[in-house]
Amino acid sequence: MATSKNKKNLVGIPEPSLRRLPLYLSYIKNSDFIERKFISATHIAKDLNLDPTQVTKDIAYMDIIGKTRVGYDVNELIETLEDFLGYRNTNKAFLIGAGNLGTALMKYGGFEKSGLKIIAAFDNDPQIIGKEIENIKIMPVEKFANLVSRMHISVGILTVPAAVAQEYADLMISCGIKAIWNFAPLPLKTNDETIIENTSIYSNLAVLLKKLNP
Amino acid sequence: MATSKNKKNLVGIPEPSLRRLPLYLSYIKNSDFIERKFISATHIAKDLNLDPTQVTKDIAYMDIIGKTRVGYDVNELIETLEDFLGYRNTNKAFLIGAGNLGTALMKYGGFEKSGLKIIAAFDNDPQIIGKEIENIKIMPVEKFANLVSRMHISVGILTVPAAVAQEYADLMISCGIKAIWNFAPLPLKTNDETIIENTSIYSNLAVLLKKLNP
Repeated sequence: MATSKNKKNLVGIPEPSLRRLPLYLSYIKNSDFIERKFISATHIAKDLNLDPTQVTKDIAYMDIIGKTRVGYDVNELIETLEDFLGYRNTNKAFLIGAGNLGTALMKYGGFEKSGLKIIAAFDNDPQIIGKEIENIKIMPVEKFANLVSRMHISVGILTVPAAVAQEYADLMISCGIKAIWNFAPLPLKTNDETIIENTSIYSNLAVLLKKLNP
Repeated sequence: MATSKNKKNLVGIPEPSLRRLPLYLSYIKNSDFIERKFISATHIAKDLNLDPTQVTKDIAYMDIIGKTRVGYDVNELIETLEDFLGYRNTNKAFLIGAGNLGTALMKYGGFEKSGLKIIAAFDNDPQIIGKEIENIKIMPVEKFANLVSRMHISVGILTVPAAVAQEYADLMISCGIKAIWNFAPLPLKTNDETIIENTSIYSNLAVLLKKLNP
């Protein structure tokens, strides 16, 4: 089933289940259930077009028990999801590649509520070095290595062109970055220790367009 | 295996294979192989950390034959990939939700080379209606329905908050949008006819952080 060779153990929760948890959280927080006291797995499943047994199983991986017939306490479920997903922690990240996509991520600002804070950005373009985006400073990439160790940064966000993605991934790994969030349209070669998560926008686009024009 | 109920037939190519094709293209175009005449599946596989048999199979879904011992003609492979992925066509898209993420996608500009052109954006915020981003005009969402049919738009890009994602997805579907690229952190309920492709940034982030802090 796995398409990636990078399979760190998720301590008891299968990856597909983990991927659905943020959707449940987003759904519950954004719907009028926030005004209700209880919500059932069946209700969530129906609204999200998923299988109720699957939803029940996914939620059971966390430390929460629903009540017969009424379901889960809404506030408790929100709290449990946020705790389990680490939304109350702050993981510090450095970003390499402050072009359009990198800038977009800095401006997006939604990650901080989800456990990730972009501390600084790095680029090699003198035109943008020195600028600030949403209080995030863009610095020359030569300073990356030194600052990673000094500031105990564990996450690297990679938003560079494919041609240089491997080079900067290697830099991140050699500096002690533990997890790379890769937006470059290229799978990265790494050691088995480094966590890699790919957001492959062009793969998504390809599937969409191929289904539209088979 | 399928996590989505939305399974349009991809005429002969499995979805995981299709998802890898843009990576091959990006890899070949961005590496120094562009200066070589031939490239083998083994070579691609090695550099992308994939299984050579898989790469050979993926490429075999397209109309190209490699030569024994040397592999594929590089230019022919690029052309075949671009044709197969529809990069030479233009699919017209409307975007709903011109906030940070929507703006980022408009500024990104890389989609046009990949078969997708954002024609216009729509929002309900008077502060941003009337603005232009990279020559893409932001219009009131009330005009969406009329313009979709008048301009024969087939793709809808959804970059709104989760709370209103279903509402605007319903609008897109009722107007005749055939494929929705959903960036909202919520699975959409649709009919079986509409193609949905989710880019679930928060699911990716959750997996990365859970692996980092198990």
